[in-house]
Amino acid sequence: MCKSSRLQKSYAKIIQAVTELIDATDDINRITVTDIVNAAGLTRPTFYACFRDIPSAFASSARERLDKAFDGFDLSSFADEADPSMRMSAAFKSILDRLERNAGYFTKILNGPGCQMAYEQIVSFVSNRLRNHSPVSAALNNGVLPPEVSCSAIAAGVTWMTTQWLMQARPISTQDLAKQISIFISYASRNGLGTNIDDVSRLKTV
Amino acid sequence: MCKSSRLQKSYAKIIQAVTELIDATDDINRITVTDIVNAAGLTRPTFYACFRDIPSAFASSARERLDKAFDGFDLSSFADEADPSMRMSAAFKSILDRLERNAGYFTKILNGPGCQMAYEQIVSFVSNRLRNHSPVSAALNNGVLPPEVSCSAIAAGVTWMTTQWLMQARPISTQDLAKQISIFISYASRNGLGTNIDDVSRLKTV
Repeated sequence: MCKSSRLQKSYAKIIQAVTELIDATDDINRITVTDIVNAAGLTRPTFYACFRDIPSAFASSARERLDKAFDGFDLSSFADEADPSMRMSAAFKSILDRLERNAGYFTKILNGPGCQMAYEQIVSFVSNRLRNHSPVSAALNNGVLPPEVSCSAIAAGVTWMTTQWLMQARPISTQDLAKQISIFISYASRNGLGTNIDDVSRLKTV
Repeated sequence: MCKSSRLQKSYAKIIQAVTELIDATDDINRITVTDIVNAAGLTRPTFYACFRDIPSAFASSARERLDKAFDGFDLSSFADEADPSMRMSAAFKSILDRLERNAGYFTKILNGPGCQMAYEQIVSFVSNRLRNHSPVSAALNNGVLPPEVSCSAIAAGVTWMTTQWLMQARPISTQDLAKQISIFISYASRNGLGTNIDDVSRLKTV
């Protein structure tokens, strides 16, 4: 879909309109295709040339916001650190700060009709990052499971930690969550999450 | 909610009615509270004494089905095995065989209005099992992250592997998926998923 450059422009306009409509509404179940094409200055056939239905458009909007939150961060640059989880943590804090500004938006998306498709987009995005641009890419590409399996399972864990935090009114700081996510990724990939805390007590003091 | 024994009976009747309605329909968005109370032989106020809304009832139905699929399996009995992932795998195969019979049901739930709540119920169920009744309970209770954090993140990974498999028309056998899930849980908890496959080549032949 949206292969021609004209349709690509329409796609971008629709995503922008969808995102603004979600930001502005209290009930995303009421957003219609007519609302979307009116806001984008397009027609219904153009919408359906780009998206199968409203849940798909919601999910693509979520992926676009996620993409913007990650923009500029290449986590793989920390691969050579002695303890990559600590440096990765700083990058995640910046990403979480961006996501936090859109907490209401993501809560609406995940409680709305695009929930399942949004999770698929988010997990696939995070999984690709883990597999190709992270300090654990090499390890997971040579690990005990096919890399697409381990990367998407870890990505689902990271997505869960983040979305639960966003929806539960952020009970811990972005810094603390960034640290937990980095430790989860690093230790699930290397050494194991059951590594005794006494062996890594320095983690607590960083 | 549902604290009195009379309400508990109503709760069970509602769950049964909801589950049967989901099994029977092609569009769970059309299921109404009236449909549910008619099928259960109850009244609308009784429904609202037990559930906040339809998505909550869908999510509780999903958790009940999951509970039945796990019935009779205590994964912690494999904790003392030299390689618990291989024995755990046999139990997971039986559980996945039960879930597979309800693949259509879970697909409807996760594409329906109870998606987010159903995920919360499922991840919390799996997380509690991991934390209290699994071969990795001891490790995760003494690991690098608070156990509720590592257990729910791993549980989200397991949930993702299983629900994607159910919704994608089961591309691999229950035996192969059970093996992948067991390896994911074992290695994320101990040694790390990036453990080189050459070091554990015996896994492939079991």
